[in-house]
Amino acid sequence: MPELLFPLDSTKPFTEQQIVGHNRWHPDVPAAVTVKPGEEFRAHCREWFDGAIKNDDSAEDIRNAPMTKVHALSGPFAVEGAKPGDLLVVDILDVGPLPQEDSGPLAGQGWGYTGIFAKKNGGSFLVDQFPDAYKAVWDFSGRTCTSRHVPGVEFTGMTHPGLMGTAPSPGLLAKWNTREAALIATDPDREPPLALPPEPRDAILGTLSGAEFDRVAAEGARTAPPRENGGNQDIKNLTAGTRIFYPVYVDGAKFSFGDLHFSQGDGEITFCGGIEMGGFIDLRFEIIKDGMSIYNVDENAIFMPGNTPPQYSEWLAFSGTSVTLDGEQRYLDSQLAYQRACLHAIDYLTTFGYSPEQAYLLLGAAPIEGRFSGVVDIPNSCATVYLPTAMFDFDVRPSADGPIKIDPGIGAPKA
Amino acid sequence: MPELLFPLDSTKPFTEQQIVGHNRWHPDVPAAVTVKPGEEFRAHCREWFDGAIKNDDSAEDIRNAPMTKVHALSGPFAVEGAKPGDLLVVDILDVGPLPQEDSGPLAGQGWGYTGIFAKKNGGSFLVDQFPDAYKAVWDFSGRTCTSRHVPGVEFTGMTHPGLMGTAPSPGLLAKWNTREAALIATDPDREPPLALPPEPRDAILGTLSGAEFDRVAAEGARTAPPRENGGNQDIKNLTAGTRIFYPVYVDGAKFSFGDLHFSQGDGEITFCGGIEMGGFIDLRFEIIKDGMSIYNVDENAIFMPGNTPPQYSEWLAFSGTSVTLDGEQRYLDSQLAYQRACLHAIDYLTTFGYSPEQAYLLLGAAPIEGRFSGVVDIPNSCATVYLPTAMFDFDVRPSADGPIKIDPGIGAPKA
Amino acid sequence: MPELLFPLDSTKPFTEQQIVGHNRWHPDVPAAVTVKPGEEFRAHCREWFDGAIKNDDSAEDIRNAPMTKVHALSGPFAVEGAKPGDLLVVDILDVGPLPQEDSGPLAGQGWGYTGIFAKKNGGSFLVDQFPDAYKAVWDFSGRTCTSRHVPGVEFTGMTHPGLMGTAPSPGLLAKWNTREAALIATDPDREPPLALPPEPRDAILGTLSGAEFDRVAAEGARTAPPRENGGNQDIKNLTAGTRIFYPVYVDGAKFSFGDLHFSQGDGEITFCGGIEMGGFIDLRFEIIKDGMSIYNVDENAIFMPGNTPPQYSEWLAFSGTSVTLDGEQRYLDSQLAYQRACLHAIDYLTTFGYSPEQAYLLLGAAPIEGRFSGVVDIPNSCATVYLPTAMFDFDVRPSADGPIKIDPGIGAPKA
Amino acid sequence: MPELLFPLDSTKPFTEQQIVGHNRWHPDVPAAVTVKPGEEFRAHCREWFDGAIKNDDSAEDIRNAPMTKVHALSGPFAVEGAKPGDLLVVDILDVGPLPQEDSGPLAGQGWGYTGIFAKKNGGSFLVDQFPDAYKAVWDFSGRTCTSRHVPGVEFTGMTHPGLMGTAPSPGLLAKWNTREAALIATDPDREPPLALPPEPRDAILGTLSGAEFDRVAAEGARTAPPRENGGNQDIKNLTAGTRIFYPVYVDGAKFSFGDLHFSQGDGEITFCGGIEMGGFIDLRFEIIKDGMSIYNVDENAIFMPGNTPPQYSEWLAFSGTSVTLDGEQRYLDSQLAYQRACLHAIDYLTTFGYSPEQAYLLLGAAPIEGRFSGVVDIPNSCATVYLPTAMFDFDVRPSADGPIKIDPGIGAPKA
Repeated sequence: MPELLFPLDSTKPFTEQQIVGHNRWHPDVPAAVTVKPGEEFRAHCREWFDGAIKNDDSAEDIRNAPMTKVHALSGPFAVEGAKPGDLLVVDILDVGPLPQEDSGPLAGQGWGYTGIFAKKNGGSFLVDQFPDAYKAVWDFSGRTCTSRHVPGVEFTGMTHPGLMGTAPSPGLLAKWNTREAALIATDPDREPPLALPPEPRDAILGTLSGAEFDRVAAEGARTAPPRENGGNQDIKNLTAGTRIFYPVYVDGAKFSFGDLHFSQGDGEITFCGGIEMGGFIDLRFEIIKDGMSIYNVDENAIFMPGNTPPQYSEWLAFSGTSVTLDGEQRYLDSQLAYQRACLHAIDYLTTFGYSPEQAYLLLGAAPIEGRFSGVVDIPNSCATVYLPTAMFDFDVRPSADGPIKIDPGIGAPKA
Repeated sequence: MPELLFPLDSTKPFTEQQIVGHNRWHPDVPAAVTVKPGEEFRAHCREWFDGAIKNDDSAEDIRNAPMTKVHALSGPFAVEGAKPGDLLVVDILDVGPLPQEDSGPLAGQGWGYTGIFAKKNGGSFLVDQFPDAYKAVWDFSGRTCTSRHVPGVEFTGMTHPGLMGTAPSPGLLAKWNTREAALIATDPDREPPLALPPEPRDAILGTLSGAEFDRVAAEGARTAPPRENGGNQDIKNLTAGTRIFYPVYVDGAKFSFGDLHFSQGDGEITFCGGIEMGGFIDLRFEIIKDGMSIYNVDENAIFMPGNTPPQYSEWLAFSGTSVTLDGEQRYLDSQLAYQRACLHAIDYLTTFGYSPEQAYLLLGAAPIEGRFSGVVDIPNSCATVYLPTAMFDFDVRPSADGPIKIDPGIGAPKA
Repeated sequence: MPELLFPLDSTKPFTEQQIVGHNRWHPDVPAAVTVKPGEEFRAHCREWFDGAIKNDDSAEDIRNAPMTKVHALSGPFAVEGAKPGDLLVVDILDVGPLPQEDSGPLAGQGWGYTGIFAKKNGGSFLVDQFPDAYKAVWDFSGRTCTSRHVPGVEFTGMTHPGLMGTAPSPGLLAKWNTREAALIATDPDREPPLALPPEPRDAILGTLSGAEFDRVAAEGARTAPPRENGGNQDIKNLTAGTRIFYPVYVDGAKFSFGDLHFSQGDGEITFCGGIEMGGFIDLRFEIIKDGMSIYNVDENAIFMPGNTPPQYSEWLAFSGTSVTLDGEQRYLDSQLAYQRACLHAIDYLTTFGYSPEQAYLLLGAAPIEGRFSGVVDIPNSCATVYLPTAMFDFDVRPSADGPIKIDPGIGAPKA
Repeated sequence: MPELLFPLDSTKPFTEQQIVGHNRWHPDVPAAVTVKPGEEFRAHCREWFDGAIKNDDSAEDIRNAPMTKVHALSGPFAVEGAKPGDLLVVDILDVGPLPQEDSGPLAGQGWGYTGIFAKKNGGSFLVDQFPDAYKAVWDFSGRTCTSRHVPGVEFTGMTHPGLMGTAPSPGLLAKWNTREAALIATDPDREPPLALPPEPRDAILGTLSGAEFDRVAAEGARTAPPRENGGNQDIKNLTAGTRIFYPVYVDGAKFSFGDLHFSQGDGEITFCGGIEMGGFIDLRFEIIKDGMSIYNVDENAIFMPGNTPPQYSEWLAFSGTSVTLDGEQRYLDSQLAYQRACLHAIDYLTTFGYSPEQAYLLLGAAPIEGRFSGVVDIPNSCATVYLPTAMFDFDVRPSADGPIKIDPGIGAPKA
């Protein structure tokens, strides 16, 4: 194991650790650790809600999840020599749940969870069809997992960090806050909200204190969305062995990360859609001087995925177009088309005996593929979603015999 | 080779064939051929513009492409015993360019083309950045292809039919026309248009004639978009070996297909973004009685992709979010996020010496993957696009050495 | 389709074609066709026994197969500019059964066969356990196949030429004949024989006639084995898209090929173990001048496999070591270890209801993987064989429930 | 992490651990640990020479490696309820080097080694061409590795246990000793030896002592070869996620394992050909009652490989036949054919600047594929070996430009 530069004690809250991380983006959050290019190191990551979600059969914790506390991030890591304009090369050497901790109250200690977030507290991709909170707990067994809340499936995790990114420059941060405020202003009372403005409550900012803390907390961008710096991209393909290239906006790059997922399907559709966990990640940095202009990469990460994701060769796929459930024709709306494809998959799975929520939770957690199949055929986008058939312990393919009926077990807890 | 039930003579126009196909969706287009479940057969397919696009170094034909003539479809095929409510199981046994015809003026005779459509004639996914018409011609060599207009790349085709579908019922057709008219009415003069209404001009309707022809031509839905019946889904994964399940809306199903692509990237982003060609397809039908209700599949195809697509294991990927180029924050707009990811890929490739249009044409034609990575992280969707690095005959990965410079050759013809 | 330079009329025997091929290796078989580097062309290939094996439910034809007639080869093709010492680069652009001929008496017309050869006429890998002749006929359906003689399985073919090679120089030919004669001399009456000496009977030598024919027929090497020139390597991975590099021993290289297989498992273990067929192959040559010394390739082909073989991701595997069935310990004998692994697979499959011969025929025909797992652990080699579980239409994995029982149908015909 | 049931302290020798394992096969080695079916647990494994091989630039340790001490095995593990005649289902949940130990003198502490064994001390697959001892040290970086002794390559490890097995019954053990003694007797002074007889010197037998130790040490089978019980199979495909089924010969099965490899190519051709390391393995057992007769598996493991091995899609392959380097024709000898294929690969790689020993060490360590391509084409077997081209940081493919020349660096140390 590489040297552990960012340790977390699983028995203590995120704010009482030896090194305190952060949960807002701001250039003035001080670097917690400094590393050299080429150095390999390990960091621990806390699950995004810092332990608020329990391994139980209730979804009350999901309904009341403390959205102002997310994401508990490890960092910032200053990289020696990194300057604005460079590309920061990040090698994900390995990533996984907490080694040595096979059970315990903290997600990542041998288990993780998927949540459907309620309309009143975050919402999800299919919030209109699924307005209430649900949860599924997944038990890890090596690189595979199962759930008492979603019986009949077992799959190999597509393990990755949901969130990685460099610190924004002051100008970039201002741009974020401005444009997101403009969006919010179009419908400020919407539920779920259109975006999340800076929120001093529950801000964690490393070693900052006093007036500086207050200033940064008032300005710091929330970590929910992906942005120019990477951020919460939730790209399931960032598995071990991945090399990513991030734009550098501040001296030292100030790289942070967290939101580990044991697995996730494309889109993370239930909002808390991957299998959330704490764990470890092993990283190494390099720098491409002036890489942003040399390669025309001035925003958003580019990457080369690792070569050990789970291999599945047989898929059952569903398609959708950009017509609403009410029959309204929208213009080339791939977001809607993917919603419709996912709803079709859910409808299909219920014929085998799953509840819609079980099917939805499965799509959020398993390594499903979601593709932009057609984006130009006016007026309909066509989106497709692919489920690996081998994850089911029954034959999930359509046939003249009709679907077998599974025992849905205790079902997914609802709040 | 299975029996050829739908032959096309490459020397004659689509309307002068032994069996005349169609280019509009309507339940009353008469079946051209009747087949039994389990029967294997071959059909020829004409390229979508019926030969209007030439193997030359001009894009005039793309700029003036006859949009009212598309798509030249083979069919309808009536399937004995198929009834509304059934699922029609379609096995794609094989698909490819025209065998025995290695050269000639018709796309599919050893070559195919990709076009960027002009804003005034169709437009494309990135129409604001690419308002003019461009073309690339691809030469087939077995299962791979190259282009004099996009040097430095060679890839194995992801060969598939862009369009397959069953006939709509009268009620379903009426629903399409109503909802699309409502969309068009919101901005009737938009260029490119929001949708395409029925268009009697250039309608081809099999054996129909006289008043019946006129009625059906006036009502028939255009074939551009995917809809409940499948249609122009442009799913690149429908390669040989794929099994697809279509809802049946009329007696006999009346199945039609066309728009073959030698290859295509996810999204078919240049509009005419696959490598368009005529060719052959070998099919077999089965029926799942009452499958629509048994499996909750009352619209949009479900499918199991074939197991011989080209294998690539090393990818270079780009990400994008739902912020416009002008800096405006949109709310969870995956269509926009995919545009931004594709633009990032184009920007990157230009650092190696490609023109933006060459890069765009390549993304439309090569077997790139486009994924919905994050669809819930308000306010930004995150979309990703993956390019197989092995298709380049140079090292396309970022490094401290900077990009090598390729010779872009004669470039992509512009009109 | 590239230009057809070597046509075969399916209604006529191999010796009565417009261009007559050959079935012996000799430098003096005249070139049948001359091609330029870079030229793409098509050739037809006759199945190896020139039509002697029928699509019926008898194995008499296998028992009496005319071994002196094999292999019916297309060629020789002279390549302009190729000189001894060069490497001949061969691109397999495409390969498959006879297009346009979906049924007929000739293997390749929509069907192919696998034979277990009898001890008295060729023998096979497991000849001591399977001394008699058996046959299975496979029906092609696009890129997949099934057999009435081996029910319960369907798989995508691993289609390739079993035999390709350059002509030997006179010196190389003499070396072959000398060393093989020496081996035969150690046990000249063995059944099956240790090797096959030159055999004038049934020799086919292109346009040769008279005394020259007699001389070459007396000297020409049999085509059964692989040798320095490539030859009957039976490498299942030479699928479409493969690039192979052959040593050149004579002016023009004189390249020949045949023995097409719709599919084959590693080893071609039933002797006639692939699915034998006639068909077509599309090729292109290039030359690496002096490549033999530049790359140290003075014998045996090197190659880069194509990227569209069938993809399977779940395998059931069996292992074997170099202990004989009688319990005798042999020293690091991988040939024996692979026999034992295959026998284990056969024993296993019989618990589901297959006859041993059905299982053996399946292993010869399906795209199984056979690997040298351990070759140094004295005294035992360890060999392993991998079966794709998806080819079975039942669950073939071991479980506490025990094997289900399939209906073996009419079984494999025996002679 | 599952509960650690078999800990090893890296600072102490294998014989001074809290639980002492064993290095001979015998039914009377007492169970070290007892586990229940379904229980998940972790065990540590010592590298096979118990630390005798160092991370340095000398191969003296390889030349003098203590062959009588191998293999340091963890176990035996008794499984509750397992009886002779059952199949023991073993799930490899995870496997890797020693967590938390990134550097140190013990292989597995962030590094591993590959050795070519000298003819006088073990020998190797190509012992006649490589009679001397060589070593390469590999540094681990997440799931990939590099070596200062073999520059220009980096690959993802194919991590697996080289050795796993159940204890033999007394009868089976006697059979082993008898048949191996008979083989040795045919050439008792051969170097390297044909097989290894029981050897009391350096025997480690768990808690046994006194006369019982002496008896078991005198009878116990060496662990070098694979046998009916599994044993040293060196199957590179037993990666994380693999399920294996072992015959049970004694009450409780008495399962043992070790010889972890960070990576290995098919065959483990340099003898110590994988990348040897200590580490951990997480396992779970189940039992199929009477599975040996139900499934006809009375010897040699059957298995289903895991689905996360490294993915490579482009390969450069070499072939060989069963003709000796001296030109002697052997009869269908796949062992020889694979030697010739490997020698061809080595000859080829030397044209780029590698020494033959560097190339040989690479083939032993990297995830190369070795296949039985033809095993029936008298008199020649055809074997093939496939190298993933992506592991080279230069273009390793043949071309008209000839091979580039790499800097071989300090080379592989020789003793």
